[in-house]
Amino acid sequence: MVDARVAIDCMGGDHGPHVTVPAALDFLKENPQTDIILVGLPEVIHAELKAHKAEPGPRLRVHAASEVVTMEEAPAVALRAKRDSSMRVAINLVKSGEAHAAVSAGNTGALMAISRFVLKTLPGIDRPAICTVLPTIKGHTYMLDLGANVDCEPEHLLQFGIMASVLVSSVEGRERPTVGLLNIGEEDIKGNEVVKQAAGLLRASGLNFHGNVEGTDIYMGTTDVVVADGFVGNVALKTTEGLAQMMSTLLRREFKRNLFTRLAALCATPVLNSFKRKVDHRQYNGASLLGLRGIVIKSHGSADRLAFMRAIERGAEEVRGGMLRHLNERLAELQPHKLRAAQAEEGAA
Amino acid sequence: MVDARVAIDCMGGDHGPHVTVPAALDFLKENPQTDIILVGLPEVIHAELKAHKAEPGPRLRVHAASEVVTMEEAPAVALRAKRDSSMRVAINLVKSGEAHAAVSAGNTGALMAISRFVLKTLPGIDRPAICTVLPTIKGHTYMLDLGANVDCEPEHLLQFGIMASVLVSSVEGRERPTVGLLNIGEEDIKGNEVVKQAAGLLRASGLNFHGNVEGTDIYMGTTDVVVADGFVGNVALKTTEGLAQMMSTLLRREFKRNLFTRLAALCATPVLNSFKRKVDHRQYNGASLLGLRGIVIKSHGSADRLAFMRAIERGAEEVRGGMLRHLNERLAELQPHKLRAAQAEEGAA
Repeated sequence: MVDARVAIDCMGGDHGPHVTVPAALDFLKENPQTDIILVGLPEVIHAELKAHKAEPGPRLRVHAASEVVTMEEAPAVALRAKRDSSMRVAINLVKSGEAHAAVSAGNTGALMAISRFVLKTLPGIDRPAICTVLPTIKGHTYMLDLGANVDCEPEHLLQFGIMASVLVSSVEGRERPTVGLLNIGEEDIKGNEVVKQAAGLLRASGLNFHGNVEGTDIYMGTTDVVVADGFVGNVALKTTEGLAQMMSTLLRREFKRNLFTRLAALCATPVLNSFKRKVDHRQYNGASLLGLRGIVIKSHGSADRLAFMRAIERGAEEVRGGMLRHLNERLAELQPHKLRAAQAEEGAA
Repeated sequence: MVDARVAIDCMGGDHGPHVTVPAALDFLKENPQTDIILVGLPEVIHAELKAHKAEPGPRLRVHAASEVVTMEEAPAVALRAKRDSSMRVAINLVKSGEAHAAVSAGNTGALMAISRFVLKTLPGIDRPAICTVLPTIKGHTYMLDLGANVDCEPEHLLQFGIMASVLVSSVEGRERPTVGLLNIGEEDIKGNEVVKQAAGLLRASGLNFHGNVEGTDIYMGTTDVVVADGFVGNVALKTTEGLAQMMSTLLRREFKRNLFTRLAALCATPVLNSFKRKVDHRQYNGASLLGLRGIVIKSHGSADRLAFMRAIERGAEEVRGGMLRHLNERLAELQPHKLRAAQAEEGAA
């Protein structure tokens, strides 16, 4: 029995089909119950399949799309001028129900704009958010938003908390994930007005709200979910990318200084490699666009084969966990008023 | 000739005089032209001096203060109820001109409140900011604000840029330090309204404005100065503290796994230690409270002897570099209108 069908925007990302197609083949090998639809320029996809001695079949379909959204393209242009882009067609497949999730390594702004336009947001959700998984000292944590919403109202931060909380429950089977609100101190009096009001909403929401957390808590794994507005979340994420890059460069430099340090490096290599695997950002690739009426996963543009396969897996996991159904139920439970208003509006339209 | 006289709040911080007094003695040994005033409970300070076989003299005075601001105290309480605290007395010495800088490892909120109340802000500056030095792949960078101002107007971010720019020029002798504005993308259209307007002000300011920088750029050392509001700056700083802590814990765990990895650790220890010295946060201890009519340095509360000595050095360097004079000149140059209005107000008061 097929447990999920994932549509892949094969043309997106820095490497396009050279990465997305072999990653899909790797995924199929490890996931015998999940099907794939490869979306993009058919001749390019077929050539890539051939290069990997693979061919289409019932579990691996090729779906044509004649255009490609570039990495630099303005979201509005991608949305209006490229109606047959691989990105758009992959999302259309989710909309029509032919696929259960779409995965793309393309331009984030375009992916968000097209997803919102085609799929629409869920009733009770004002704005979708981008949510990623990060390694922590205890395991991992889910952080959102990472840049989709630069100015947030308290209500939006509450919605982010609800969405990520349901995501963790669905994918990890954890009952009541803890939710932390990113702030500059643990005390209630800390932070700006938006964060203070959001804390009040989260506390009254019925979620397992831990309270304020600080930047340090993200990687300490203090909570299962860390909620922030898109500006703060993006800066936090990218700052750690910079620090990790600096530390690995300086460490490499240190190990290359002279013959003695090179020998030491040789000695330490297996340990350092095992450490690297644990904090390897590729393992955590694949951010969820949460709040849409469909599952969309954004891969890093620079993802390699392993990283892109992880993003496909993330999409499949959300489908298998029934994330959308759970989210709809939870929204109905937690935000009845809001939901009713949204439904009334929809009925009238 | 004495090049600077630094007042030290000996009672502040997690360890109080056990750290501050020996750190001051270390500092004096390495800085033969700089004097120290130890401020706090005299009997405690004298006991600590005795324990280190040191005694007061013309270069090392003890100045009595009968109260201590605790680490948890509300800033308003520290300000109103403890007029003879070691923190307040140290800042009073800067106000009266007996000292050129004050250094404290005490409660940040109290230190900022007392400094603002006693010293006042510089003409042309609306709000003081906290600025720290961070290691980068190329050397180091100055980042502000780190939490004093959670809601900033574009004008405030401009002022932060001016202050840090002058700080870098004064302390490092660098002519026109580059200034970056922390944002979620390099393009002008990115970010929230405040950041977009701040970019316009910075571009028109005559500073060496590089443009927007992302979180990654902080540790890549893209610019000499990174400007952010206090919420974002605080989260960025603390997030990296968390990541650094996680990475060192996981690495240690990896090296302790079995006999083989322990041997590898032994082998790699000198290299790892040399790496650790390079990114040792103690070397970067001492954040400047910028924008006041006096030099105030905030040390980490948990600072040890080496770290606290670095904070004293930072204060002395700002005095020697003529930071305040340069800042006054620069403010007069860059913000003549604002300055004139502030001066008129002062004349009227």
